[in-house]
Amino acid sequence: MADPTAKTTSSVKFVKTNAEVPLTLPVTAIDEKGQQVDKFVACERPLTVYLNWRPIVTLMTLGASPESLALGYLKNQGFISELDKLESVIVDWDVNSAAILTKETSDDIEAKLSEKTVTSGCGQGTVYGGFLQGLDDIKLPTPSLKQTVLYSLLKNINAYNDTYKNAGAVHGCGICQQDQILAFVEDVGRHNAVDTLAGDMWLEQQSGADKIFYTTGRLTSEMVIKVAKMGIPVLLSRSGVTQMGLELAQKLGITLIARAKGRHFLIYHGQDTIEFDVPAKQ
Amino acid sequence: MADPTAKTTSSVKFVKTNAEVPLTLPVTAIDEKGQQVDKFVACERPLTVYLNWRPIVTLMTLGASPESLALGYLKNQGFISELDKLESVIVDWDVNSAAILTKETSDDIEAKLSEKTVTSGCGQGTVYGGFLQGLDDIKLPTPSLKQTVLYSLLKNINAYNDTYKNAGAVHGCGICQQDQILAFVEDVGRHNAVDTLAGDMWLEQQSGADKIFYTTGRLTSEMVIKVAKMGIPVLLSRSGVTQMGLELAQKLGITLIARAKGRHFLIYHGQDTIEFDVPAKQ
Repeated sequence: MADPTAKTTSSVKFVKTNAEVPLTLPVTAIDEKGQQVDKFVACERPLTVYLNWRPIVTLMTLGASPESLALGYLKNQGFISELDKLESVIVDWDVNSAAILTKETSDDIEAKLSEKTVTSGCGQGTVYGGFLQGLDDIKLPTPSLKQTVLYSLLKNINAYNDTYKNAGAVHGCGICQQDQILAFVEDVGRHNAVDTLAGDMWLEQQSGADKIFYTTGRLTSEMVIKVAKMGIPVLLSRSGVTQMGLELAQKLGITLIARAKGRHFLIYHGQDTIEFDVPAKQ
Repeated sequence: MADPTAKTTSSVKFVKTNAEVPLTLPVTAIDEKGQQVDKFVACERPLTVYLNWRPIVTLMTLGASPESLALGYLKNQGFISELDKLESVIVDWDVNSAAILTKETSDDIEAKLSEKTVTSGCGQGTVYGGFLQGLDDIKLPTPSLKQTVLYSLLKNINAYNDTYKNAGAVHGCGICQQDQILAFVEDVGRHNAVDTLAGDMWLEQQSGADKIFYTTGRLTSEMVIKVAKMGIPVLLSRSGVTQMGLELAQKLGITLIARAKGRHFLIYHGQDTIEFDVPAKQ
């Protein structure tokens, strides 16, 4: 993942004005025997995203990657699109804010804010007009993935999910290539985790064509749309699928593999992607 | 649950213009052996909520209780507050809309729409200014709940979660009293399930004081706030807790019980609520 502390990616100047925040905090709970037990809880903090000093949204986040989250949110909602118009990202946890400065005019931003129409995925939330734009232009490659490689990937993913293992209450998402995890993000909101990875890929101008998107969360319409926008042709989840997630995957040509855990999975769309190379038991 | 088909609750005239929609659909998936398996997927459909013909938000929902969902959303976001100003609720699945008519003026609505500030819970989504209003006025009673009754409740809940058992990919929420489930709602968005129950309780002017709120979802800030607004002093979840969910529960005086499943649970706040009446094993 990008460590954005006072560094320059492409022509973007990042300024992170204060240090890292904790991702979990220790607490004491009482178990069913009436006994005190030491536990951790996942942090949850507001992050208000400003675009050219105009407040756009406040996201509730774990706080691990605020710069990429803010950028990915703005990118996915269609507020920003050209990397060379991006000037800087300033995160300040003292005031829970991420300020993004671009060369976009404020008229453009107001026009996009006024288009809010569709909401989404995890259930609720206004998603701005730009979210659904450009879907028709998406052309995804037809990938191939060996079942043995998929199993190896699922095994490798077990080494991630640190916050989940420690405190629960977060979802994890990863960008994978064959059985390797290139980036993994956890967040209290599963859409934040997706947006963070989208922000990273956009900043680094990575192609999604040879990638696999893994998530612990459910494959709803919004999840499928965001993965398609990243140009990734394979979506892999530990959880289930909704009907609209499935319909969009069919329309956009995304291989949809759900209930993937251990040596089990269900392909809901794109069965030709998987090469069944695990020998049948005698 | 309220069945709102052409009935009158208080002074509210409901008109539901077309029939029930399916909650799951049959699909064929391919399993890890390369074999076709018959599965169901949970439905997910857009529902655009109009208040006095002004579009407010589009929710992605399972579609089981669109009237209560639309009302609960508007109530929780502070757009509507007085039941006697409510005139009618018209759901039309042909155009995926829920139109709510009230005696509120359009100026009031525009003022509330302009206050959008805070977003939430499941991660994302604009939550309007009214959401956080009135929290300081909430006074919750100090409840008492026997451990044996809690176990009986958890056992009774197993009989619900129909869509989840059939298709996965949904969250369930229930309004409970002692070990009885008074209402249970599933939705593809966990916040939709909460809003639906909030809408029902508001319509029926039920007190939350003697109720327990159960959810399969995580206890984030937004979940705790919504339960507090319903006047319910006990929040019970099969999942985990975030730090802000815990802090709000402490501030608002909500008993927070997480990881509740079978005979296990963890009390994160309000341990005096539980009477440990299960005899210790010899």
